[in-house]
Amino acid sequence: MAIAHLASGQVRSILPLSAPPDTLQSIAIFKDAHLEVIRMVLPAAKIIPPHSVNGPITIQCLAGEVLVTADAQEHRLFAGDLQYFTGGVVHQLKAFQDSALLVTIVLIPTVSKV
Amino acid sequence: MAIAHLASGQVRSILPLSAPPDTLQSIAIFKDAHLEVIRMVLPAAKIIPPHSVNGPITIQCLAGEVLVTADAQEHRLFAGDLQYFTGGVVHQLKAFQDSALLVTIVLIPTVSKV
Repeated sequence: MAIAHLASGQVRSILPLSAPPDTLQSIAIFKDAHLEVIRMVLPAAKIIPPHSVNGPITIQCLAGEVLVTADAQEHRLFAGDLQYFTGGVVHQLKAFQDSALLVTIVLIPTVSKV
Repeated sequence: MAIAHLASGQVRSILPLSAPPDTLQSIAIFKDAHLEVIRMVLPAAKIIPPHSVNGPITIQCLAGEVLVTADAQEHRLFAGDLQYFTGGVVHQLKAFQDSALLVTIVLIPTVSKV
């Protein structure tokens, strides 16, 4: 079942649910012209290959343990940890446990070069 | 003691600390050209008067209970709740308990009208 995005002023809990992680899915909490917030679920051993976005992002670990690799540096995120990247930084994620992240992405259009 | 802002790639725990809330202070986690993240501490009964910002924001309750009033609607946020506002929405906060919020603000310059 699709979950409706939050409209302005609406509230949603982003805490981990009590259901087993393998029944959980990543969901977009909302997306507007400038900002996108995603609750990302990563089962243990899941890898998100290297990628980047134009704008700054924050990765907040809600549950579990996730290794974030960027600029040849590794950080392990545990529940309550927040990591910030400026725009354009290539980063990779690997879950060491069933994990949930709140990912906040500032949307900045790519300026096409003529 | 001033706390250094996060540089890109750095990590900080945003969980409530174990110290009593009256010894905690709101801190800027980081601020760059596009995004600002603040860990806001509100002692019980504290009110943040009506205000707005240009860009979209999220208010995530980390601990406590906060009443958010906007557009003549009230929402009570508890730990784990995330509220989204599009840019320009006037909102007011009132803490019902000692509370901590993670406030994420997209910075959009005001366009001066000539």
